[in-house]
Amino acid sequence: MNFTSFHPTPRTLMGPGPSDVSPRVLSALSRPTIGHLDPEFVAMMDELKALLKYAFQTENELTMPVSAPGSAGMETCFVNLIEPGEKVIVCVNGVFGTRMVENVERIGATAIVVNDDWGKPVDLEKVKKAFSEHPDAACLAFVHAETSTGVLSDAKALCQIARDNGALSIVDAVTSLGGVELRVDDWGIDAVYSGSQKCLSCVPGISPVSFSPKAVEKLKGRKTKVPSWFLDQSLVMNYWGGEGKRTYHHTAPVNAMYALHESLLLLKQEGLENAWQRHKDQHELLKKGLTELGIEFIVDEAYRLPQLNTVVIPAGVDDAEVRGKLLNNYNLEIGAGLGIFAGKAWRIGLMGYAAREENVALCLTALKSALAK
Amino acid sequence: MNFTSFHPTPRTLMGPGPSDVSPRVLSALSRPTIGHLDPEFVAMMDELKALLKYAFQTENELTMPVSAPGSAGMETCFVNLIEPGEKVIVCVNGVFGTRMVENVERIGATAIVVNDDWGKPVDLEKVKKAFSEHPDAACLAFVHAETSTGVLSDAKALCQIARDNGALSIVDAVTSLGGVELRVDDWGIDAVYSGSQKCLSCVPGISPVSFSPKAVEKLKGRKTKVPSWFLDQSLVMNYWGGEGKRTYHHTAPVNAMYALHESLLLLKQEGLENAWQRHKDQHELLKKGLTELGIEFIVDEAYRLPQLNTVVIPAGVDDAEVRGKLLNNYNLEIGAGLGIFAGKAWRIGLMGYAAREENVALCLTALKSALAK
Repeated sequence: MNFTSFHPTPRTLMGPGPSDVSPRVLSALSRPTIGHLDPEFVAMMDELKALLKYAFQTENELTMPVSAPGSAGMETCFVNLIEPGEKVIVCVNGVFGTRMVENVERIGATAIVVNDDWGKPVDLEKVKKAFSEHPDAACLAFVHAETSTGVLSDAKALCQIARDNGALSIVDAVTSLGGVELRVDDWGIDAVYSGSQKCLSCVPGISPVSFSPKAVEKLKGRKTKVPSWFLDQSLVMNYWGGEGKRTYHHTAPVNAMYALHESLLLLKQEGLENAWQRHKDQHELLKKGLTELGIEFIVDEAYRLPQLNTVVIPAGVDDAEVRGKLLNNYNLEIGAGLGIFAGKAWRIGLMGYAAREENVALCLTALKSALAK
Repeated sequence: MNFTSFHPTPRTLMGPGPSDVSPRVLSALSRPTIGHLDPEFVAMMDELKALLKYAFQTENELTMPVSAPGSAGMETCFVNLIEPGEKVIVCVNGVFGTRMVENVERIGATAIVVNDDWGKPVDLEKVKKAFSEHPDAACLAFVHAETSTGVLSDAKALCQIARDNGALSIVDAVTSLGGVELRVDDWGIDAVYSGSQKCLSCVPGISPVSFSPKAVEKLKGRKTKVPSWFLDQSLVMNYWGGEGKRTYHHTAPVNAMYALHESLLLLKQEGLENAWQRHKDQHELLKKGLTELGIEFIVDEAYRLPQLNTVVIPAGVDDAEVRGKLLNNYNLEIGAGLGIFAGKAWRIGLMGYAAREENVALCLTALKSALAK
């Protein structure tokens, strides 16, 4: 093997993530590495936490980035907040709901699964019914914005149902944070996790999480130790925690934190509501163009994610061939279908820095050309 | 709070990690993000794997970087290879041995602890005795290079003892990889993990791991599911695995992988043996200078790590004040003592790109000045 430095061809990233990264974020990423206990780094951590609280719209003290991708953020919520033997009502309407079930089962808890069709949101009535059948359920877990289908579920109403039944809520906001309305405190979300590489448009690898005071209370009152030492938030808190001395837990991914800080700063400077509106506006533009090309959406407009557009691959079209043309001729990445949508759908992302008019124009032009016989 | 872009003051990093990062690695880190399933990225992954095999001196097919820091690499080895109820002999001669005990206990296995004094290597006779008392132990776990004390243990002999007793070996090579001799295949190591931010001089956040065929066999024959979905190597393998199609597991930290690739390329270009020798040479220079300053080493020369020099803080010297002077006047970071060495020792790192003559010169000059009354 002849090894050389890697120089990737620049791409426009309009798949389900990673999304286009702003040059400002890449520039922050490559600033000189300093120590994870350096006073300058510690001061930056405080800013980063404050920016994360803004993005999540929360005052939760336990709000911090997990030093690993979104899947680890998911696991952080489950391993800290659920104990073996407990029941968790898990809503499944796509790939990431099934992953939640895996998480619940692997810690020795029981998943009560509420199934909805892929492409549909979580049905509130089914969740109420599940609670009536399992009044002892400790937690409700669901995906706010399903990355595999492009569907938005009603997080506010679902958390209300959890609260009405004395249960905690765990919410997957990997694809929603920064792209659509999400209000952790107003909606009474107890635990939420996201990913750096979707609508925050940071590089992949970090998972912001936030726990409500009620969730922290549950963590502190555990009868058993958190099964994962690495993800044990009662320990990590002493490094990311509020006051004074920072206790070493693990070596933070210093440069990735610079990048996350910069991407959150971009969001703060734009304003959260403005970012939500921009995603909507670009989605409208994309929708118009796709409709003109005769391409249909899988998800009904009422619960369609603006930042992740799942569309039917037109009859007679070769999935891989078209995506290959987009990538090779236009350096444009769109997403393949996942799970039951593999080979049947494309996922066109308009996430964060990728939700720009020039991207929509490129995508429509490139698709039109790639679909032409 | 007034938020602004973060511009860290460049530091010279001579603590226990992160170590100085080469400009080549920072440059690779900030190249354009592409998709984690992009054919160009997949080709780079193959090179990265081959380079990792070289660094570890192994032909193990399951050799890959875990998308999280070294602590997650440790956890990867334990959660995949140990089942609840099994016995693991864990050698403790510093902080990271105690962390291994935590890992073993949190998965419901039993740790048989072999204690050695901090600052001493693992005693082979004690390990043999532990096996004679616990012939059913499934595994021997130990730290090759203790980051908390600067001690090297005899990994080759310890793995031989494990093999003689029909047990697997799990080896912490976080601080040893790239800095001192480590030969995974020749020494018969079954599972090994490291960190990106020590002698590889990459940015922190990634943990290379390697499992022997015997370890993979144990993983495949498990009676219970791996408790962590995120770290389940039987799933991750399908993304990093050898042949053909890559199955999505989690979104790889794309840019961090560019950086790790570049740091491993630097190691390959220098040559592993040359890198080991460079660490020795720079250690000799540092030792000479420290001795002239009247500073004494904690660890005996016979098992002292060249890349991590644990020295006694001279009597009457204020630990924090001196480290503060080094940081503020010279932008030089050295490490505080950890665990029982807190306030009593400094840890001076010469890791990877930091093991250069100009760093040694700076460190000695700065220390001399900071210690002067």
